[in-house]
Formats: sequence, C-alpha cells, structure tokens
Amino acid sequence: MSLALNVAGQNASTARQSYELLRDLVADDLNQVNQVIVEHLQSPVTLIPQLAGHLVASGGKRLRPILTLTTARMCGYAGRRHIDLAACVEFIHTATLLHDDVVDDSALRRGSATANAVWGNKPSVLVGDFLFSRSFQLMVADGSLEVLKILSDASAVIAEGEVNQLMTSNNIATDEAAYMDVIGAKTAALFAAASEIGAVVADEPDANQAALRTYGMSLGIAFQLVDDVLDYSAREADLGKTVGDDFRDGKITLPVVYAIARGNEAERAFWKRTLEDEDQQDGDLDQAMMLMQRHDALADAMARAREHGARATEALVGFPRNPYRDALLELVAFCVDREF
Amino acid sequence: MSLALNVAGQNASTARQSYELLRDLVADDLNQVNQVIVEHLQSPVTLIPQLAGHLVASGGKRLRPILTLTTARMCGYAGRRHIDLAACVEFIHTATLLHDDVVDDSALRRGSATANAVWGNKPSVLVGDFLFSRSFQLMVADGSLEVLKILSDASAVIAEGEVNQLMTSNNIATDEAAYMDVIGAKTAALFAAASEIGAVVADEPDANQAALRTYGMSLGIAFQLVDDVLDYSAREADLGKTVGDDFRDGKITLPVVYAIARGNEAERAFWKRTLEDEDQQDGDLDQAMMLMQRHDALADAMARAREHGARATEALVGFPRNPYRDALLELVAFCVDREF
Repeated sequence: MSLALNVAGQNASTARQSYELLRDLVADDLNQVNQVIVEHLQSPVTLIPQLAGHLVASGGKRLRPILTLTTARMCGYAGRRHIDLAACVEFIHTATLLHDDVVDDSALRRGSATANAVWGNKPSVLVGDFLFSRSFQLMVADGSLEVLKILSDASAVIAEGEVNQLMTSNNIATDEAAYMDVIGAKTAALFAAASEIGAVVADEPDANQAALRTYGMSLGIAFQLVDDVLDYSAREADLGKTVGDDFRDGKITLPVVYAIARGNEAERAFWKRTLEDEDQQDGDLDQAMMLMQRHDALADAMARAREHGARATEALVGFPRNPYRDALLELVAFCVDREF
Repeated sequence: MSLALNVAGQNASTARQSYELLRDLVADDLNQVNQVIVEHLQSPVTLIPQLAGHLVASGGKRLRPILTLTTARMCGYAGRRHIDLAACVEFIHTATLLHDDVVDDSALRRGSATANAVWGNKPSVLVGDFLFSRSFQLMVADGSLEVLKILSDASAVIAEGEVNQLMTSNNIATDEAAYMDVIGAKTAALFAAASEIGAVVADEPDANQAALRTYGMSLGIAFQLVDDVLDYSAREADLGKTVGDDFRDGKITLPVVYAIARGNEAERAFWKRTLEDEDQQDGDLDQAMMLMQRHDALADAMARAREHGARATEALVGFPRNPYRDALLELVAFCVDREF
C-alpha cells in the first residue's frame, strides 16, 4: 500500500533481512530462552500455560530478549545468566501485553485473536499478574540485586506510562513532549532495561552500562514512533494487527499531534469529533490519513524516529567491533525501516 | 442479624477488642508504614496516588502489615526494615484487591465504592501493576534476596490461586480439597509470607521462620473461611460489603460445598441453577441461607476455621512470652470470631 512504501517502507525488505540476520546470530541462545519460558509457564492451574502459551507462541519478534542476549554477547559474556534474564524481560513484556489488550479491548495481536478475546478479560488480568511474579522469581534465582533494581524500576515506569497514556487518550491538547513522556515510559523503558542487563551480566564498567541503556532507550523510542506511523500506513498482513486501531481507540500519537498542530479550524473540529468525542463514521480513517499526508505528519514522525535511531547508533561507538555489535547496528535499521 | 450472632459472632465484641489491642500495640510502627505507603504512592501521573490512595485510605484492617510488624517485634527486632517490608506486603495486597475487584466486577469494598466503580477497570488494572512494581522496588531497596524470594513466591502463588478460583467458580462439583487449595493460595500465602518476613528481619533460626510461616498460613485460612461464612451471615454495616456477593458471583465457598454435598436432588438442582447456570431470582439468597442452616454448613465451616485457628496458636508455642506474642494469639481469636 502506497503510503507505507512512501513513508516507512522504502527499505522494508532490507529491514526484514536485518532482523532475520540478528535473530539467526543469537538463534541458539534464543532457543534456550524459549525453553526457559516454556518451563516457567508450567502450573497445576492449566489455564495459565494455556493462555500464556497462546501469546508466547504467537510469533512475536522477541526484540526485548534479543537485546539482552546480543548486548551480553557483544560485551564478550560467555555464561548463561543472559538466557534466564532474557526470559525475565520477555515475561514482563508478555504480562504488559496481556494487560494492554484488556485495557484497549483489543481483539487481534500479531494476526491472532488476543487472549482476552479467547478467554475473557478476567484470566488475562490474572495470568498477567502470574507472569509478572514469575519474572521476579527468576530474577531472584539469578541473584543480582542490580538486575532486580533495573527491572523493578522499569516495571514501575511502564505502569506509570500506561496510566499516563490513558489520561492523554482522547485529549487532543496532548503535545509532543507529553507524547514523548508516554512512549519513553510505556515502550522505551523496557528496551533500555533489556539492553542494560546485557552489560550488567558481562560486568562492564558503568559508562558502558549507561551507553547500552541509552542505546535501548533510543531504539525503543524509534520503534514506538514507527509503530505509531504504521498504525496509519501499514499493510494489515504485514503488521499483524488492524490498521487504524489507534485512531479508533482515540489514541493521540505523534502523527496525530503534528496533524492537529498544523491543521485549520475545520480540521481541528474533525480531530475533536473523531478522537476526543469518539464520534466516528465511515470514511473518517481515510480522512485522517489524508490530513496526515497533507501536513507531512507521518513523514515528520518518521524523521523523529530516524533521529532517535541515530542516537542509538552513536551509543555503540565505544564498543569493540564484532558481529553482535554489527547486528545491534542493523537492528536500528530494522526498527526504523520495518513494516511489521 | 441472628445467623451472624449464632454462628460467627458469639464473641464479636471481644473480637473487635482483640483487634484494636493489637493495632494499638503496633500503632507507632503502623503510622510509619502508612507514611512509607503514602510516600511511595507519589507519581507525576496524578491518577496513580489518587486511585491507589482511595483504596489505601478506605480503612482496611491492615492485617498483613500488622503481621510483619508484630512478628518482627515478638522476635525482638529493633530496627526499621520491618516498616518498609510491611509496606511492601500492603502494596501487594492492595494490587491484588484492585485486580480482584476488576475480575469480580465488585462495586463496593470496605463500605466504599471500589476503584473500578469510580474510575473504571482500565486504570484499576494499571495502577495495580504499578503498586506491584513499587513493592518490588521497595524490597530491592531493602536488599534482602531472602525477602524477595518469599514475596515473589507468594505473588506467583496468589495469582495462581486467583486463576484457579476463576476455574472453580460456577462449578458445583468443586470439593473441599479444591476449595482449600484456592484459599491456601489466594489468601493464606500472603499471610504466611507477611509473618515469615518478621522472622527473617529478626534473623531467627530456620525453625522459627517456618513456625511463623505456619502461623500465618493457618491464620489466613481461618480468616478466609470466616470471610466466606460472613458473606452468608454478616450484618452488612459490619462487613463493609454486600452480603451475598459470593452467591451472586457463583463462587463455590466451603459452606456451599457442604450444603451441596449434604443436599437432596432438588437442592442440588437449586445450586446448579443459581451457581452454575447463574440463573438467580428474588428469594434465592434466602433459600441458600436456609439450606445452609438445615445442613449446618456455616457452623461446620466455622468449626474448620477454629481448627486452623488452633494450629496458628500452636505454632507460637516456642516463642518467648511477651505482649507481641499475646497479641498474635489474640489475633487468632479475632480472625475466628470477627464480624467484619
């Protein structure tokens, strides 16, 4: 579909290759992470592995655990703590997805029915709580208070960001700074934590730990910005979710912020009706996409994504050149140019 | 109301005195716990302290943090770690209450509107996640992997118990063993953890730590059994919630298990219609209460509560006699004889 190709997808097939390269590089580690995940989903309460397994097996990109694995490897780590901790990161991510889908009433994720759509909201909330607890049990078994601090801080920030997003939803007065606060918390905090942990297990000096944190934070922001652009431009088959979800939910993402700021009074009334009052009709999504194109809203949001991508790239400057570092650089290209 | 006085409330006014005695004994500590809670509820996202504060300030009995405070004091602990850890315990409890009320669609808790009734399900889910994360942040600051293990294990077991309860809901084939599994996990696990932590901060030998764990576990089971009885017998003003909630939710509690097991075929059809098919009419709650009285279901559930109370009492035998030990013994009497 043309907007996607124009705006986000110029290098989409290369982007997919970048991702696959990275995933193949840590394939052995990632298989072990999957084993740890499956083992720790076990419970005599059969609905727990059933429901959580549905989401875990649904073919996510595993970006966050891959970050932990690859940063640890880049730093020369040769043990197996990064396996368990990558599983912790994925558990926290999965828990937040389960709760997000309840909060957003989502029906589709990664091209499959959401857990809340299949089993209802109640078990989704409770199994999310279970996964969150399991993650902390695994961290305790690992035994590092430093890791526990990084991930408990990240979890608190994520929850704060999610509540913040609820409050900015349907509020067309949301500005760029408020939007950046939300995505820094709800998405980038876990990318940052996942990357930082790689440095912690490899016992890197504080400066390198901070650099990997910056890498993850910048990458996460770029990733979320592209996600928000894709919601208005992707091909549904690529994205694995419904295009226009954010619009229908009245979410104020950066493309919307730009379009509102640059629109005339009639356009402002359109945004107020559709997003703030949630009074939407057939054709409104097309109209929204047309207004975004008129005001370069998607292109400019992509430009911001590239800026943050560049910061992620810079953060890797001080690390030794090796295939893992190359892969982390490629990952930036993937996050910016992806279509899924 | 007569059933309450006959079955659960013979010593209700004494029970209230026992509770107040205990609360007064640790009043200074408890005030500090409240300060820690209020400080750690702070967030730039104002809905978080607002929503969480609504529940925290709604006058709960604070039994779980009181357990941590009193067991630590009984063991002669003179530091202040028990303050922060009691706040952790209360945060976990509050998070589970927020999620429970969403899962149960509850409108009333402790005589006030629930957070989900005031602000909706979405922020209740997310603020619950925030409180859970805050609790782990506080534990990390305390720095004990042993405490982190106890409370992350308890959290996983609680979530497991809640999912298990969902699965037994509306299932009149649930037997006493399955019911005991549910309440051991969803209620008693946190009582056990809260009590055990008192021994951990006081650096007690393993046997004493295990004894306090048993005390908390037995007390928690007794507490939940009485809760289930009160749901069919209490005076609403005392209980601070609506009598018959469990019945309307189709929850299979021990009194129901007994009444079903002892009922004839017509009675079984009544329970199937009201609890399994959730087809309820005016007068059904009265009918349920009448059947329970006919089969001594409430009285026998209370007898079980007293058995577990006796185990809690026994678990304190090896500890030195002091006012804190006396208060923990009184607390057993409160949990068994309470009307609120």
